Amino acid sequence: MTDSSRPAGVFSPVVTPFGADYAPDTDRLIRHCRWLVAQDVGLAVFGTNSEANSLSVDEKKWMLDALLDAGIPPSRLMPGTGACALPDAIDLTRHAVAAGCAGVLMLPPFYYKGVSDDGLFRAFAQVIEGVGDAQLRIYLYHIPAVSQVPLSHALIDRLLTAYPGVVAGIKDSSGDLDHVQALVDRFGARGFDVFAGTEAILLETMRAGGAGCITATGNVNPAPIVALYRHWQDADAEARQAGLNRTRAAFQQFPLIAAMKEAIAVQSADHAWRNVRPPLTELAQPQRVALMQALDGLGFVMPDAHLLAA
Amino acid sequence: MTDSSRPAGVFSPVVTPFGADYAPDTDRLIRHCRWLVAQDVGLAVFGTNSEANSLSVDEKKWMLDALLDAGIPPSRLMPGTGACALPDAIDLTRHAVAAGCAGVLMLPPFYYKGVSDDGLFRAFAQVIEGVGDAQLRIYLYHIPAVSQVPLSHALIDRLLTAYPGVVAGIKDSSGDLDHVQALVDRFGARGFDVFAGTEAILLETMRAGGAGCITATGNVNPAPIVALYRHWQDADAEARQAGLNRTRAAFQQFPLIAAMKEAIAVQSADHAWRNVRPPLTELAQPQRVALMQALDGLGFVMPDAHLLAA
Repeated sequence: MTDSSRPAGVFSPVVTPFGADYAPDTDRLIRHCRWLVAQDVGLAVFGTNSEANSLSVDEKKWMLDALLDAGIPPSRLMPGTGACALPDAIDLTRHAVAAGCAGVLMLPPFYYKGVSDDGLFRAFAQVIEGVGDAQLRIYLYHIPAVSQVPLSHALIDRLLTAYPGVVAGIKDSSGDLDHVQALVDRFGARGFDVFAGTEAILLETMRAGGAGCITATGNVNPAPIVALYRHWQDADAEARQAGLNRTRAAFQQFPLIAAMKEAIAVQSADHAWRNVRPPLTELAQPQRVALMQALDGLGFVMPDAHLLAA
Repeated sequence: MTDSSRPAGVFSPVVTPFGADYAPDTDRLIRHCRWLVAQDVGLAVFGTNSEANSLSVDEKKWMLDALLDAGIPPSRLMPGTGACALPDAIDLTRHAVAAGCAGVLMLPPFYYKGVSDDGLFRAFAQVIEGVGDAQLRIYLYHIPAVSQVPLSHALIDRLLTAYPGVVAGIKDSSGDLDHVQALVDRFGARGFDVFAGTEAILLETMRAGGAGCITATGNVNPAPIVALYRHWQDADAEARQAGLNRTRAAFQQFPLIAAMKEAIAVQSADHAWRNVRPPLTELAQPQRVALMQALDGLGFVMPDAHLLAA
């Protein structure tokens, strides 16, 4: 269980808007972040679904500065700061900590595959020592299907023992409720908060003692996800979960990042939102039509979309 | 077949020496590169076996500058410049082209898996257009076991059609001779040179019409590999290939980067060579002993190792 001073609830890896020249568009980013914060969604900017690894460290630093300059509260920010190269991870993490962010979400170095726990321990330890700030709160990022570098329980145990308080939790994007449960059972009592990587298991994650979820579709369906988080002990929780699952399933028929951007583009009548950076591609026309049909069939409307308008 | 103005022969992804603080050590790097050049091995610095993705873009830029300042000829340099983030790939590639490097070896963006050929085409095209220099020569880097992002023949065809002359070849680290042969057969006549990613198939690659090999073990066994390249049509070529394979097999019993660095450390009596950046780890003591036993059993001695000494 979490106390009120710790990040909890619903976070979203904020999708990154780009111009036609693929430059990050901070104006649209700020508007989208304000809209999410207004719905009580925390900002896990620079996540997988933010195309974070398609951004340079300098781009991420000035995007973060732009959000803070626009008045986004750092207490709602949990930027992704992991990188293949330790100097990059240290540089961006230090920047986030100095800005007062509530925490950072940290991928392991992900180029080399089959690396040892010793090597991964050293990598995280080097970042922690290199940042050298007691305010640092690291949320480990376990997303083996994409990173291809899983984080073992033995590694987590070593990190928690070496850096209690600094190692504060995990985003578990395994999609496996049993894994969420095992993490809570083994590490929850040591000040280690477990966030599911999808709202599709949010109710069960809360029942298991988890802290919430960090989920891509928070970008497009924030209010109902937050409502389940707030009301997970109510009688209608199962029905709420089923509703979330239908919406998520509709998006997941398509490449997720492009589909979410398409929905935002349509809802805000702002087609620049379709842009994704290579190697990703925007939805093709038939996919656009199919996505809208799927969402219409659910009666899905993004609320408060006027907040996104230019 | 290649003409004399094009890179050909044996290149090596140069191992990167680090200090105890994991900072790149340009003095040792320069000495090692001079030794390789003296043996007619080209310098594919910043490759997989250089721990390139564990280095920041700035580190790679100043390491390249240090090599050039030390008099390493740019005509012998083929730095790796691919990156997950397009601005990083453009920045480093532009730096390499301005320095007069013979070519660059380019990984695709490797974080997202299962991306489309359209997306990968855009990624390479954005780098080529972003660099905007007719002197650019790109060697594509196909290493699916590590990058998890293979480069299809359809993609290569599109790139060659769009950027003839600029797209100059490939390093094929599939380890599959049939794939090397297929690449030569399909694209060789269009000014596209195929390098094998290992000397274990060097003889067959030359027979297939390939341009040579870009191989990690060039760091530790350069002269015999170059000798096979020069004498592949001689009667003793099979025996030379068998000798190369025995040496490679000895190293491949261990994590390759750590094993090569261990061999250099021992041969040059300079233990700082053992350092690898996390998430990699140096060989443990029993592995060190086993590696030396395996090499001794082959009568293996790194030639001219005094050139590496401080």
